[in-house]
Amino acid sequence: MEQRIIDSIEAIVGKDGYSTKPADLYTYGFDASIFHNTPDIVIQPKTTEQVSEIMKIANKEKIPVVARGAGTGLCGSAVPIKGGIVLAMQKMNKVKRVSVADLWVDVEPGVIYNDLNDELEKYGFFFPPSPGSAEAAHIGGMVANNASGMRAVKYGATRDYVLGLTFVKADGEIVRAGTRTIKDSSGYQLARLMCGSEGTLGIITEITLKLTTKPKKSAYCLCTFNSIHDAGKCIAALIAKPMIPASCELMDSISIKAVNKARGNPVPDCEALCIFEADGETDEIITRDLKIIEEVANETGAVTVTPSYDKKQIDAWTDARKSIMTSLSALKPGFSSVSLADDMGVPISKVPDAVKAFQEIADKYRVTIATYGHAGDGNLHTKMLLDPTDPDEWERGVKATDDIFDVCIDLGGTVTGEHGVGIAKAPKFKRERESELSSIIAIKKAMDPNNILNPGKLEQWEGSIITNLRYPCEKCS
Amino acid sequence: MEQRIIDSIEAIVGKDGYSTKPADLYTYGFDASIFHNTPDIVIQPKTTEQVSEIMKIANKEKIPVVARGAGTGLCGSAVPIKGGIVLAMQKMNKVKRVSVADLWVDVEPGVIYNDLNDELEKYGFFFPPSPGSAEAAHIGGMVANNASGMRAVKYGATRDYVLGLTFVKADGEIVRAGTRTIKDSSGYQLARLMCGSEGTLGIITEITLKLTTKPKKSAYCLCTFNSIHDAGKCIAALIAKPMIPASCELMDSISIKAVNKARGNPVPDCEALCIFEADGETDEIITRDLKIIEEVANETGAVTVTPSYDKKQIDAWTDARKSIMTSLSALKPGFSSVSLADDMGVPISKVPDAVKAFQEIADKYRVTIATYGHAGDGNLHTKMLLDPTDPDEWERGVKATDDIFDVCIDLGGTVTGEHGVGIAKAPKFKRERESELSSIIAIKKAMDPNNILNPGKLEQWEGSIITNLRYPCEKCS
Repeated sequence: MEQRIIDSIEAIVGKDGYSTKPADLYTYGFDASIFHNTPDIVIQPKTTEQVSEIMKIANKEKIPVVARGAGTGLCGSAVPIKGGIVLAMQKMNKVKRVSVADLWVDVEPGVIYNDLNDELEKYGFFFPPSPGSAEAAHIGGMVANNASGMRAVKYGATRDYVLGLTFVKADGEIVRAGTRTIKDSSGYQLARLMCGSEGTLGIITEITLKLTTKPKKSAYCLCTFNSIHDAGKCIAALIAKPMIPASCELMDSISIKAVNKARGNPVPDCEALCIFEADGETDEIITRDLKIIEEVANETGAVTVTPSYDKKQIDAWTDARKSIMTSLSALKPGFSSVSLADDMGVPISKVPDAVKAFQEIADKYRVTIATYGHAGDGNLHTKMLLDPTDPDEWERGVKATDDIFDVCIDLGGTVTGEHGVGIAKAPKFKRERESELSSIIAIKKAMDPNNILNPGKLEQWEGSIITNLRYPCEKCS
Repeated sequence: MEQRIIDSIEAIVGKDGYSTKPADLYTYGFDASIFHNTPDIVIQPKTTEQVSEIMKIANKEKIPVVARGAGTGLCGSAVPIKGGIVLAMQKMNKVKRVSVADLWVDVEPGVIYNDLNDELEKYGFFFPPSPGSAEAAHIGGMVANNASGMRAVKYGATRDYVLGLTFVKADGEIVRAGTRTIKDSSGYQLARLMCGSEGTLGIITEITLKLTTKPKKSAYCLCTFNSIHDAGKCIAALIAKPMIPASCELMDSISIKAVNKARGNPVPDCEALCIFEADGETDEIITRDLKIIEEVANETGAVTVTPSYDKKQIDAWTDARKSIMTSLSALKPGFSSVSLADDMGVPISKVPDAVKAFQEIADKYRVTIATYGHAGDGNLHTKMLLDPTDPDEWERGVKATDDIFDVCIDLGGTVTGEHGVGIAKAPKFKRERESELSSIIAIKKAMDPNNILNPGKLEQWEGSIITNLRYPCEKCS
């Protein structure tokens, strides 16, 4: 990056507000995905106005800009694949105002999910989406990716809570979109369009989220099954009852083995299990809903059905579920758990078909695939265990990913339920969203004519998904 | 319209699929707003493909196209202000599929709100938004306007239920946007952008809505107050508790007088009242929530507090609320109830300030203004009683509207909570959404370069809002 540009950035954010040190650039070239690319400068803005001034320079000089939250994304959305500027938003981390009587909260993008909920809990509210990375994920990143997690089946995703937001356009114009009212029909829902746009339409610098009351009670039920297919049938039958659980987490045998090995057997050793959560306002409702879960589980062939109201027991189960990703890497020495096909969504009734197909694909390509996820809303995660130094392993992994994505699209699903497209889903994104492509391209061009906002991702990605790997696999394409 | 164009339309939809008869054109020049303008042709398409073929002709010939649902809109969104084609969607009226286990329903745009809920109730589900025109409103119109109604405070607006939709672009391209999965993060949320775009970005021909379970129990509580300001304070205090009612309907003294005169005193004669609804899964919850409502109402100065579990009583109250608009026109002989400032949204805590300001504005301009609405989500309706043949009445009405809109915007609110912008809100829309305008204009141009989709509305409106009046007021501008 030319010194004159660095100087003009320093004039905006000061000496402490940016870095071009190689170590910093290297660090900010990662997110939690399999990708890496080094930016030219990392900037930590403190205000919307600073972001605006930076964007004016970037737009004039045609420098790519990638906004970055906590870097917990698994698809490479925050990896600066074309170099340029990384806008690291962690200094914009204030909960600006909780307006209890108006049912909204204003936050800066760098606020951490759990910190926000700690604040909201004081007033009896919560922001439900519950990403797996709740302890680290930034609200800004959640909005940019329309993130969600365990509670989406009952409470929806981030998109359902965004009342308004402030964003900076490619040319530096500051836009306040949406409202601080519970509803509005005043023109285009720009705030909802920004939600999930992965930094390709603007830089989000403030967010107004709708508050919702936190249920007073909850309890869990762990059911084991002889096959993951049976577990899927149980979930679909429960939803059709209808009984919408607060969460519904599926684990296959590989996930179970991994967490039991890594964490001292927190869950029963079995072929598949499902952890259901019921929540509500009174013990009576929890008891009623757990009874429905038990009945449906027994009717659909559960082997064991274990309800629990005990916090210690419940924590052990939910910690086990949350530790799958890290536990998998410890399952097989020399192998890493990688996010390739990591976040598919299918219609809930298709969960059994999908998980069966994943197993067949794993066999076909001789790869180890763990399947788990928020099956209550049809959101299935897989992780592959690969030797990341072996190009052949990668090649088979990519073929398996390709097949998994195709199966999910053919079942009427999506390649990403909650993680976003980034790089990892980009090749199939074009297949899945073929019908939307002309609109997506037109809107992107209208909002970012110089193509400086997170360029090269989503519909713009070309080539294999195993380029720019973070792993030392020199022969990978 | 040239005969060759009519012939090409007839080739698509057949002889029975369109009309150019003056009586039909006159009829389809109205919606429920104060506006009227005659189209050149009314077409009733039966399929997405027919809409696509029609759009290709319209785009080539640069003919304006306005889609129309049941015509219950109050802002002129469906009035063909530039003539051209009205696409009347009532023949596309099928509930195509209720997929219970997948939690979605596919509908054509001409399905009536109540008909959809009758169908969903069979499975234990409902589509909550509850517009005032539930017996007539089309789902397509609700999506186009991001409509809602009494239950938005607890259940959100239409935008929160649109998982996907099919729309036809200005150039005739058929786009399937979004998914049939509960969540997706796969690129831009185009379906959410279409929701609320009032037919200016495309013609919606199919909609996938998320299903939600219908609560098993509900009960009501009617509270009377010495002033509408007190009622507003009660509502804000209840929300801040937090206790989110299923609905929360406010009526001022003029609304109360009107319905009591027209409908035989269904509600107590008082200065202001609020009808709260509590819903949930068990009697225990309803009892608990009604008790909270009673406590808060008593603490904030309610004169009477009347809980009811009796269907007959509750029906009388809710019918009274729903009949305000029609009852008002019967209050004062020779006067009509008109929708000028009809649908403002303010932060909930600002409801008392807003209603107080409305009364002052009514006094200032010597107009009769009734205030009511879904105050639990800050959505306030007003209706003015005018002699629609008197230009001076209109002039004062327009000035009052202008002031009401300004007050709401200044309180951090919006000119439209659930009805849309259309013509009636267009002049103030530009003030309210000044910050969004460049984005709105860019997206509109990207999606509709020939400006044929509902042209002249929203940000394109110029001039006074009392042009194209449906009333015989020849001296109006």
